[in-house]
Amino acid sequence: MENLYRFRIEQLRELMRNKGWDAVIITGSDPHNSEYPAERWKQVEWISGFTGEAGDIVVTDDHAGLWTDTRYFIQANRQLEGTGIELHKTRVPEQVLIPEWLEQKFGKDCVIAVDGLSTTVAFAKSLPSEPLSVPNLLEVFWKDRPGIPQTPIFQIEAGESRSEKIAKIRSWMEGNCQGALLVTALDEIAWLLNVRASDIEYNPLAISYLAISQERVCWFVRKDGELDDTTAETFGMLQEEGIEILDYDTPLDGMEMQAMFGNISSDPDGLNYAVFHENAAWLSDCYAPISQWKSVKNAYEIQQVSEAHIRDGVAMEKFLYWLEKSLDSGRQVSEWDSAVKLGKYRSEIDDYQGDSFETISAYAEGAALPHYITPHENAPVLEERGLYLCDSGGQYLSGTTDITRTVPLGDCSELEREDYTLVLKGHIDLAMAVFPAGTAGCQIDVLAREPLWSAKRNFGHGTGHGVGFFLGCHEGPQDIRQNFNKTPLVPGMITSDEPGIYREGMHGVRHENLLLCVDAGSNEFGKWLCFEPLTLCHFDTSILRLDLMTKAEIDWLNDYNARVREVLSPLLPENVAEWLREKTAAI
Amino acid sequence: MENLYRFRIEQLRELMRNKGWDAVIITGSDPHNSEYPAERWKQVEWISGFTGEAGDIVVTDDHAGLWTDTRYFIQANRQLEGTGIELHKTRVPEQVLIPEWLEQKFGKDCVIAVDGLSTTVAFAKSLPSEPLSVPNLLEVFWKDRPGIPQTPIFQIEAGESRSEKIAKIRSWMEGNCQGALLVTALDEIAWLLNVRASDIEYNPLAISYLAISQERVCWFVRKDGELDDTTAETFGMLQEEGIEILDYDTPLDGMEMQAMFGNISSDPDGLNYAVFHENAAWLSDCYAPISQWKSVKNAYEIQQVSEAHIRDGVAMEKFLYWLEKSLDSGRQVSEWDSAVKLGKYRSEIDDYQGDSFETISAYAEGAALPHYITPHENAPVLEERGLYLCDSGGQYLSGTTDITRTVPLGDCSELEREDYTLVLKGHIDLAMAVFPAGTAGCQIDVLAREPLWSAKRNFGHGTGHGVGFFLGCHEGPQDIRQNFNKTPLVPGMITSDEPGIYREGMHGVRHENLLLCVDAGSNEFGKWLCFEPLTLCHFDTSILRLDLMTKAEIDWLNDYNARVREVLSPLLPENVAEWLREKTAAI
Repeated sequence: MENLYRFRIEQLRELMRNKGWDAVIITGSDPHNSEYPAERWKQVEWISGFTGEAGDIVVTDDHAGLWTDTRYFIQANRQLEGTGIELHKTRVPEQVLIPEWLEQKFGKDCVIAVDGLSTTVAFAKSLPSEPLSVPNLLEVFWKDRPGIPQTPIFQIEAGESRSEKIAKIRSWMEGNCQGALLVTALDEIAWLLNVRASDIEYNPLAISYLAISQERVCWFVRKDGELDDTTAETFGMLQEEGIEILDYDTPLDGMEMQAMFGNISSDPDGLNYAVFHENAAWLSDCYAPISQWKSVKNAYEIQQVSEAHIRDGVAMEKFLYWLEKSLDSGRQVSEWDSAVKLGKYRSEIDDYQGDSFETISAYAEGAALPHYITPHENAPVLEERGLYLCDSGGQYLSGTTDITRTVPLGDCSELEREDYTLVLKGHIDLAMAVFPAGTAGCQIDVLAREPLWSAKRNFGHGTGHGVGFFLGCHEGPQDIRQNFNKTPLVPGMITSDEPGIYREGMHGVRHENLLLCVDAGSNEFGKWLCFEPLTLCHFDTSILRLDLMTKAEIDWLNDYNARVREVLSPLLPENVAEWLREKTAAI
Repeated sequence: MENLYRFRIEQLRELMRNKGWDAVIITGSDPHNSEYPAERWKQVEWISGFTGEAGDIVVTDDHAGLWTDTRYFIQANRQLEGTGIELHKTRVPEQVLIPEWLEQKFGKDCVIAVDGLSTTVAFAKSLPSEPLSVPNLLEVFWKDRPGIPQTPIFQIEAGESRSEKIAKIRSWMEGNCQGALLVTALDEIAWLLNVRASDIEYNPLAISYLAISQERVCWFVRKDGELDDTTAETFGMLQEEGIEILDYDTPLDGMEMQAMFGNISSDPDGLNYAVFHENAAWLSDCYAPISQWKSVKNAYEIQQVSEAHIRDGVAMEKFLYWLEKSLDSGRQVSEWDSAVKLGKYRSEIDDYQGDSFETISAYAEGAALPHYITPHENAPVLEERGLYLCDSGGQYLSGTTDITRTVPLGDCSELEREDYTLVLKGHIDLAMAVFPAGTAGCQIDVLAREPLWSAKRNFGHGTGHGVGFFLGCHEGPQDIRQNFNKTPLVPGMITSDEPGIYREGMHGVRHENLLLCVDAGSNEFGKWLCFEPLTLCHFDTSILRLDLMTKAEIDWLNDYNARVREVLSPLLPENVAEWLREKTAAI
């Protein structure tokens, strides 16, 4: 395989010499700055073999480098072996990011080419010289490159109509935005139009752009070929409401866009450089609060997703029961078998649309990698000792779930018991938090960490990410982590609470629920907020070190497990319900 | 009095009409952007009567306004009554700051005049149009305006010589700074030169500027008149080391500066606009890390200030003993009597140089104001019930102290007991924190708040501020509060830990120690830090609600009180030591 990537890079270098380019940047994103791009845009993987979820490649005449962060150093070192590509580490104190590295190498006079479609305006503008926008730069070499996805597009109920959302954005646009607003983020478009598709694995999105002016709503979504019936019906409904269905590529036709809208505004952090390049003369920056609105779930969404979590919890409890009984009976179960079984239980749910990400089913030392990929073949077999970690989620018409449970499969070491307990303390301390309106996630993140920090342990990922309503399993603008994100937590936001601990070659622990931010009343000190767990699945108490826990933490845990029992038992087969009663006995 | 301020503003307006100025801004600072200016620069007070520590005045033909923050709303409303000056609130969501307000009123074409000496470059540049720099703008009306202070300047031991500090700054300047570095912050100059004076009440500083180039060190400090012996000796020593002693006003003579240094660099957040104006053509921005270096105390400073806290603790314990016994014996004691008594005990300490700020001695509802000013006359008399709060500190050759104790004087209500306990929990939880290297104060601030937040209570000030070594009682760059200050806490930094709770008309509680950040070792998870309390004075345990405290908190408190007893008892009179033994009995 190594030679393949060396060959591809040499092919690119030959093109670069012919064109007179000093550097080419291949980014890991798509024309919509998606966190998870469809196969077509896995250009970094195609040219380097690196499959991490974040990484950008720079090729020059005498250097090829991959820039990626702490999460992927081990993986990158392994996958880049023999390719001649060097790893450049990011999110470390000594990092030299691509713009700086290029400037150090070439100064300000270099000729840089980028695939304008996969590069954001903000990134292009951070480079030492204005780059050339070469749409689909690698396509000349990549003969079997997948096409632009076009899966069936369908409508959903979301508690607020398209026309209400469009009216809201139009009202905001007055005074904040010049001309039409061009929305490029796929989840924002899906949210605005109440439509879903499955163009990207695990992400129920349709590849498209959306332009909204005070007069028109134009959805640039039509691609080549025949429309399937579902999509045709959806387009018909939208057109009846006055939404125009236009070709996906239209935003790249600057004259056409100018003729349609006059001026255009868009978010430079999401807009791709190719569209910018074709429209620069009539395009301004604009930061619309769509992701903020999307993050605050309405009453319908909250009611629906609460029910989705009940059904998801039923699947989880059936799975955990199956797992324990299978091991007890001596059956051989691998990490992969477990993942498949859990997927089967989820797929029995009425409105199940698929998983929300690839299940992490990890036993013992496998769980020590926070982003472990469970092998499809020859997966490690679970034994009746130590810890098993499962991080998974479902996409339902009624919402998105994301849950991690770590369970003891038999005897555990003292270190495993301590780690298990301290991580759960962190999870509970954050879940119990009461905080004033206006508080940002980074201001309470430490609540999930201090029980670990006190024992001089830590984890290298964020504590919580936003979660969409039958949308991305990761969404902004809020989060709970050690950054300086000023976005306040607001009632209606759904955020994960997932501290962990990872010990290379030994074990990993992560405990994750989704938390709904809710109003906790007002008094003379102001307005108060707190969390309610949406996730319903018991936490195993058998290996807890109770001496390390406070009374408040134990009370919270008993209350939570009791609630799980009360809500789920009536929906479980009797043998599972009986087992759950034992599992949730108060401690 | 009202008519006086109205009259002064009318005088100013007449000048404005003659000069053709649309607006005049009077800021509350001095030419060195000091938090606490000397009397000469209390221009806001002179023109408005407002005595708060933060406030700026804008006068136009038809409006006069004071901009100040939440801490001073009540005081401002009272002091501005009858002056015709309106309060503009800052640090509230709906705030309209001065630059925005001026732009809304006048657009970009207005003529704004400022006292260039009391206005920073950064503030001047934020205004809608470039302001006129009018040094000492109010002096034409303010006939008895105090002169520039010039108190005796003396040298101190600080564990690192001037020449070492200057070598360090010169090394940093290479590549970071064009030409000479002009240092304008008074505490940075005092730290760099190892000199102190008392030009500003409670702040052991000399009004001056300092310029450092690779060739010269020029201290602009000489003012009119004869030198006192101490200052003459200090100047002599500095001159022997090659430091030039020049006139304070020199930086205002641009041609002279240019002749001396060629180019100059300075920090626009601290540099005054008058000096900038005279040097603009050869002046660049530069952010030297002097305040960072100053904040990290060296081994000598740490050893000295630890001893200062022992002596300060002895004074505090004598004071608390005196207070309790006085009330027991039926003697009438006012808030002011208490403050005086505490000052007397401090002044018995060998190297005492004065207080580090005006003692807040506040009984019952007085303590509900975080910035209460104890009245010199007719001060409230303490009764044998409820809570008494005392926030005070000393300046010693061996360092600066700042301590708050809240003590029950007799029966307390349930609410007082709860508040007392919850605030102490917050204080202890922060003091116990262990955290990874790189952590900023805002990332752990919540540890001091969550015990209060859980009960839906809060306090409206920061939890902790940096403290200098025989320097300002408030210093940066670190703090512990709900902002997004990214400065990490570093071993050697001294920061206060002072959560509180304030109930208008009822009572106030604040518990404050100074914490030294120290190394807590390294392991596979990285490098760890924690705090050691420098302050030594027992916390009263008699009214604690132990049922609200965790075992870890009670253990911390018992250990702390035991340490106070062990260290201080040998230094206390026997009757006080005996009393302290009772006070510090384990709970």
